[in-house]
Amino acid sequence: MKTNAGRFFEDYRIGEVIAHAVPRTLSGGERALYHALYPARGALYSSDAFAQSCGLAASPLDDLIAFHTVFGKTVPDISLNAVANLGYAEGRWLGLVWPGDTLRAESEVIGLKENSNGKSGVVYVRTRGLNQHEQPVLEYVRWVMVRKNRATPTPDPVVPVLKPALAAADLVVPAGLDFTRYDFTLAGETHRWGDYAVGEKIDHVDGVTIEEAEHMLATRLWQNTAKVHFDATFREDGKRLIYGGHVISLARALSFNGLANAQMIVALNGGAHANPCFAGDTVKVWSEVLDRAETAAPGVGALRLRLVAVKQGAAPFALKGADGKYLPEVLLDLDYWVLVPV
Amino acid sequence: MKTNAGRFFEDYRIGEVIAHAVPRTLSGGERALYHALYPARGALYSSDAFAQSCGLAASPLDDLIAFHTVFGKTVPDISLNAVANLGYAEGRWLGLVWPGDTLRAESEVIGLKENSNGKSGVVYVRTRGLNQHEQPVLEYVRWVMVRKNRATPTPDPVVPVLKPALAAADLVVPAGLDFTRYDFTLAGETHRWGDYAVGEKIDHVDGVTIEEAEHMLATRLWQNTAKVHFDATFREDGKRLIYGGHVISLARALSFNGLANAQMIVALNGGAHANPCFAGDTVKVWSEVLDRAETAAPGVGALRLRLVAVKQGAAPFALKGADGKYLPEVLLDLDYWVLVPV
Amino acid sequence: MKTNAGRFFEDYRIGEVIAHAVPRTLSGGERALYHALYPARGALYSSDAFAQSCGLAASPLDDLIAFHTVFGKTVPDISLNAVANLGYAEGRWLGLVWPGDTLRAESEVIGLKENSNGKSGVVYVRTRGLNQHEQPVLEYVRWVMVRKNRATPTPDPVVPVLKPALAAADLVVPAGLDFTRYDFTLAGETHRWGDYAVGEKIDHVDGVTIEEAEHMLATRLWQNTAKVHFDATFREDGKRLIYGGHVISLARALSFNGLANAQMIVALNGGAHANPCFAGDTVKVWSEVLDRAETAAPGVGALRLRLVAVKQGAAPFALKGADGKYLPEVLLDLDYWVLVPV
Repeated sequence: MKTNAGRFFEDYRIGEVIAHAVPRTLSGGERALYHALYPARGALYSSDAFAQSCGLAASPLDDLIAFHTVFGKTVPDISLNAVANLGYAEGRWLGLVWPGDTLRAESEVIGLKENSNGKSGVVYVRTRGLNQHEQPVLEYVRWVMVRKNRATPTPDPVVPVLKPALAAADLVVPAGLDFTRYDFTLAGETHRWGDYAVGEKIDHVDGVTIEEAEHMLATRLWQNTAKVHFDATFREDGKRLIYGGHVISLARALSFNGLANAQMIVALNGGAHANPCFAGDTVKVWSEVLDRAETAAPGVGALRLRLVAVKQGAAPFALKGADGKYLPEVLLDLDYWVLVPV
Repeated sequence: MKTNAGRFFEDYRIGEVIAHAVPRTLSGGERALYHALYPARGALYSSDAFAQSCGLAASPLDDLIAFHTVFGKTVPDISLNAVANLGYAEGRWLGLVWPGDTLRAESEVIGLKENSNGKSGVVYVRTRGLNQHEQPVLEYVRWVMVRKNRATPTPDPVVPVLKPALAAADLVVPAGLDFTRYDFTLAGETHRWGDYAVGEKIDHVDGVTIEEAEHMLATRLWQNTAKVHFDATFREDGKRLIYGGHVISLARALSFNGLANAQMIVALNGGAHANPCFAGDTVKVWSEVLDRAETAAPGVGALRLRLVAVKQGAAPFALKGADGKYLPEVLLDLDYWVLVPV
Repeated sequence: MKTNAGRFFEDYRIGEVIAHAVPRTLSGGERALYHALYPARGALYSSDAFAQSCGLAASPLDDLIAFHTVFGKTVPDISLNAVANLGYAEGRWLGLVWPGDTLRAESEVIGLKENSNGKSGVVYVRTRGLNQHEQPVLEYVRWVMVRKNRATPTPDPVVPVLKPALAAADLVVPAGLDFTRYDFTLAGETHRWGDYAVGEKIDHVDGVTIEEAEHMLATRLWQNTAKVHFDATFREDGKRLIYGGHVISLARALSFNGLANAQMIVALNGGAHANPCFAGDTVKVWSEVLDRAETAAPGVGALRLRLVAVKQGAAPFALKGADGKYLPEVLLDLDYWVLVPV
């Protein structure tokens, strides 16, 4: 059998480090496609000149290009037989990615917990993305529910203790970043770090209806080849499930209107793909300010934000019902830190 | 309120200069996408070697990439609350755009005329695109009908006097351009400037059916985020209106067959988006030669062309009915100057 | 008449060399789009670092980017009036293509055979792709059935003698290629050249459902503008025929799962587009090992493979029926040589 059937729950061992295949060199081509796929308008990832005015050598590749590229590499080893993508934690961007850089990924198994039905279990991995100089650019914890394929003894459960959110001290601000000469006119909005209050909610107004061709182009671009995104004969209902990362990028781009100065994601505290997304859905987003922090970098503050993506029919600021469960129109609930000019 | 609701008619002042947000660095990625989105085959914008044989350092980015990028930047400030995009005039390409260049845009308000109903008015702006060296690459006048949001006094009407068409002396031929060694075989056709007669009409034969994913990829690529192009829940009929610039680029590319040597657009005399275009429409085009002019550059002539895009069901060379109004199958009527080898 | 109606059977002469129009400079943009359009994961065409570990200066552009670019240039001169694309033979990749290279194409007419009905004939051409240094990068023979437009004398039939398959000695291994330090982990599979046995068949498992927007983006990217791919009003059934090369690239990419180490195509022995492909079809693929050969390059072996693409409803390893004809679910039957680490 020459094809890869993917790993099953019983194939993972605590402490094991899996080197993921197919390193990828990124260029201005990936950036252009990112802008074609998502309504991204953050000035720092759009303009070399703007990035230079912020102390960087040029405009780096979007933080989520790095995330999707690394994530895509893990799919054949981690989630090919996943029943569900359960959560993220302790995600940190550790270094900028530039056109011409080559990324690879590796994951350490840090938790295993078989379900009581004996048919599946939860696998926790800490994934790192590395560039061609073996410098880390990204790390995050993800946990997925994976099917068992063989009857094997139940391993002792190991559940990692994960931070509910990263602290301000955990955040890595890119070397050289300096917002003291930040041009709010070119960035598109005047709201500074100090203008956002904890508890404040923002309805980002804009919406985008998703097409099959778009989410498949995106998902392939990150070399994420999970069948369920591409093959209309795979699910009984003939629908192609949209890669959760497509919704993340779409939601992040749509939050520009109200968060134009939220330039760089530096941490991913957590995230839930609350309901599946399909082509034809119209996605809108809202945000809530969860926390604020200072950083040591000149002119750079940090905001912890909740980003919620909903589809058509959602009530304003829809999130959870009285039962504490996500409402059916909610697609994504993301918790992240972002850098903002003070 | 942190989101941008856009400007209304009463928010504009004569003489005001609006600096538009989100500068954009362009690369080979945008060029590749342009070729994927439109059947563009002009040799000068396709091949470094061909461009070098025409006296340029390399192949610049397509003239309409520059136009769409600049136009897209103006949308949040000029046409977010526009009822209609009424016209263009005095458009000139002033400098070439190269991969790696960063474009920004600014617009001066040059006309204001409230409608008699007091509910809307026409705003005239002269928009300029500038590169990272603050060199102008493009300028054009556009006027749009914009809603009023508040009852305000009617301003004195100011309507700019605009040239019905640019004169040959107004055209800026890129420095170094030289068509004396022009390779007609590699360009794809043998027709020279002298082969086109004023009044001549050309049916360009080819047609393209438009998909939703395509026009949205294109429109996002230019960071034009007007809701009506993306959100199927925005209009009552559930249709997404296609960005007029998508039709312009599609029409220009389809005119290759018969105008393969019409290498560079240097002026936009006027243009009307005669009827809305929707996904599923099959676009075909025809051209009429309106004028001819010599230029001072070696081997370089200029043609003034009318480019008409029509959809399925149009009669040959369809344009206007007996009532002088555009026929319902006509999508675009564009008037421009282009450089052609003599 | 300024538009190109294309050549008809009577317009070709034995020995004539046709220089095709519109040279094309390729960049990282085309590579990024290739990865968005196809689930390509071959490490050599994905990563500069991996390619460098294989003795190359950087990652070249995918072998099929070169093929499609050259093929696209030939369409206006060879197949605009083609009734059918009948076959390929003696295809060889002769030099690597790098970002920044400019490709052009020329074709020599090497065979002509009028059909007995006098209404059409078969045209054989040997096409070469050349870079900006006039170095060949690719050559192949293609034959197509082309309509006659005028009653002309039937030419003496000339049918070239073509090799049923290229021999190992015909294969050109890129200078410097060295698989002795090949990293099987990063490549994604452990199967070496010696692990593949002649006669072995591999079901590649994965499937992709094709969208209209995708195949049109791809086909335009290669500047292949045959109407039948783009214009829904062209065929009576309102369907757009998918460019055969789109199926080739999709099939090749889908064969990664089981052939991850089949890094570079170096020869195309033959190929048949067995049945038309339309949007909505879900494509899956299987391979058969036809031959094995050693090469003089360190650590580099060659496999001759049959690659078969089928659509939904196909039986396992579907190919031909009892009548020797392709089954209706078979889209593509391709015969090629590929380089694999020993």
